[in-house]
Amino acid sequence: MRATLMYGAGDVRVETVPNPTIQEPTDAIVRIVAGCICGSDLWPYGSKPETSEGARMGHEFVGIVEELGSEVTGLSVGDFVIAPPFVASDGTCDFCKEGLQTSCRHGAHWGGHDDGGQGEFARVPQAAGTLVVVPAAFDENLIPSLLSLSDVMSTGYHAAKKAGIEPGQTVTVIGDGAVGLSAVLSAKLMGASRIILMGRHEARTELGREFGATDVVAERGEEGIAKVRALTNGDGTHAVLEAVGLKPAIEMAIGVVRDGGVISRVGAPQFSDVPLGFAEFMRNITLTGGVAPARAYIEELLPLVLDGTIEPGKVFDRTIGLDDVPAGYQAMADREALKVLVRP
Amino acid sequence: MRATLMYGAGDVRVETVPNPTIQEPTDAIVRIVAGCICGSDLWPYGSKPETSEGARMGHEFVGIVEELGSEVTGLSVGDFVIAPPFVASDGTCDFCKEGLQTSCRHGAHWGGHDDGGQGEFARVPQAAGTLVVVPAAFDENLIPSLLSLSDVMSTGYHAAKKAGIEPGQTVTVIGDGAVGLSAVLSAKLMGASRIILMGRHEARTELGREFGATDVVAERGEEGIAKVRALTNGDGTHAVLEAVGLKPAIEMAIGVVRDGGVISRVGAPQFSDVPLGFAEFMRNITLTGGVAPARAYIEELLPLVLDGTIEPGKVFDRTIGLDDVPAGYQAMADREALKVLVRP
Repeated sequence: MRATLMYGAGDVRVETVPNPTIQEPTDAIVRIVAGCICGSDLWPYGSKPETSEGARMGHEFVGIVEELGSEVTGLSVGDFVIAPPFVASDGTCDFCKEGLQTSCRHGAHWGGHDDGGQGEFARVPQAAGTLVVVPAAFDENLIPSLLSLSDVMSTGYHAAKKAGIEPGQTVTVIGDGAVGLSAVLSAKLMGASRIILMGRHEARTELGREFGATDVVAERGEEGIAKVRALTNGDGTHAVLEAVGLKPAIEMAIGVVRDGGVISRVGAPQFSDVPLGFAEFMRNITLTGGVAPARAYIEELLPLVLDGTIEPGKVFDRTIGLDDVPAGYQAMADREALKVLVRP
Repeated sequence: MRATLMYGAGDVRVETVPNPTIQEPTDAIVRIVAGCICGSDLWPYGSKPETSEGARMGHEFVGIVEELGSEVTGLSVGDFVIAPPFVASDGTCDFCKEGLQTSCRHGAHWGGHDDGGQGEFARVPQAAGTLVVVPAAFDENLIPSLLSLSDVMSTGYHAAKKAGIEPGQTVTVIGDGAVGLSAVLSAKLMGASRIILMGRHEARTELGREFGATDVVAERGEEGIAKVRALTNGDGTHAVLEAVGLKPAIEMAIGVVRDGGVISRVGAPQFSDVPLGFAEFMRNITLTGGVAPARAYIEELLPLVLDGTIEPGKVFDRTIGLDDVPAGYQAMADREALKVLVRP
């Protein structure tokens, strides 16, 4: 089959690799209908040292079950399924039952190793616990939104859920990437009355407004903090959803959160310390969030996609075939594309 | 009147100062029946530069209303009242209504300035919103427990509440001071099934066991973390209540918290950065807590003190008069006394 490999920073190739095969009786083989390039793929795309063996890329996809291991229950060949990113989970351990499948006791990983989602097929471990079946026939036009549940929408929703947004509350979303925009949509779903989107890419912030942002703040740093405070009577917002992962973003989050408020982060931190000292202690600021257990949210969000309540797939602004994946990486790195959908 | 002043590290004096008077129509003057020395008083006792003008000390007390400003409602001269520490709050703003009186829009402070609680009288600003009246006659023996609601018990309870402890959950409490022990009692109140107290002072950890600790871990650092993990099948606990405020304590908290768990801190941080980087992000660790809005909890805990359900006043292991306050500071600094009650 054809699949995407990364050999180093800026060096992405589509090559022929062996088809994946069932290795454990709990595995499934999925023929990928749509995958995508993730903002997190841009980290190695910017910095990975050159290697002689490429790493398989991709971790978000929807597809059709092609083959099942002997112990997989609840799935049939031909099912259309959504795969959560990175993590396979058994669905039966205490962490899975609590909705923290990313800490599954018998979990496995994919993406960036020997079996990614930017190719024609993928092997999914712990398939019964990991994959979510999309019921019945559905409109092909829904594929982008179904695919978004695999990662970005579920990640934005994780930010909003961990923040515990209540109807009528005020929210700041930091970052106008696909996850940030999904966080806007999630805050809106949870009833936030005011959603301030901090971002400076107009096409993206326009989609943010469509998703529910009531205000857009393009400024950053102290200037951005002052702007958000001016919009909120000097208070800041009850919740801040941080979808960047860089230190200046978390510093802005601390600056715009209201006393007693919550910073919920879903941008993978590219730093080791968070400046939450005495002043933040006196303000009773909470820091929460983390890697999203997407599996916990797909079943909850799926009906909203199927009935048209939400259309998170709008974050995809480019669709390409497998051969164009290297160009797709470059387009996302250059910020020409917000999020690239791949149809193998 | 006689009151306590601190002139510098190790230099505490009891002197005659002018009686406080009503300055605002919202003030009350309270005759102090019992006050105490706080763990937080030990920070300046250890490090305050010598000054020619002493700072008034104390911020926790119970007493009897002596005089009321013309605009104070809901209080009568002669009422026995509990004062929350540090902060006066109006009781009417949005922060007060949310239970975050420490961020009151019209709040004021006492303690360490010109009007402390380690003396015969104190002026209480925003008295109607700040003071809590203890109903009817009560047993004089309850005074220590009523006094504990002024600060330590409410602070320990804040830790437990912000952690959102649910019945059956596991909890680690870091610190065997009066706040840590109050946190143990609070975790027990909220239904924690297992409470691991990290502390090494046997008299204190014994009281911790009486308050509900199921296990005591005397080890610190990596050794302490390993011990707590060994007690919890390698997982750590759902909640960690951190009642120390030093960096090694927060590092231990990160080491003993279960994936998806909550670190709730009420030890005022003596550091500016919290090591919550990528690894903690992948574990979905939450950091919450902060200065306790004791006012929010006094009314909730008061009935439990009055009916004998809890006896948080057991943290006081020494009672002194005003003249002995300097010796009381030294006894707490030397860890000879856990918590000193002052009867002016």
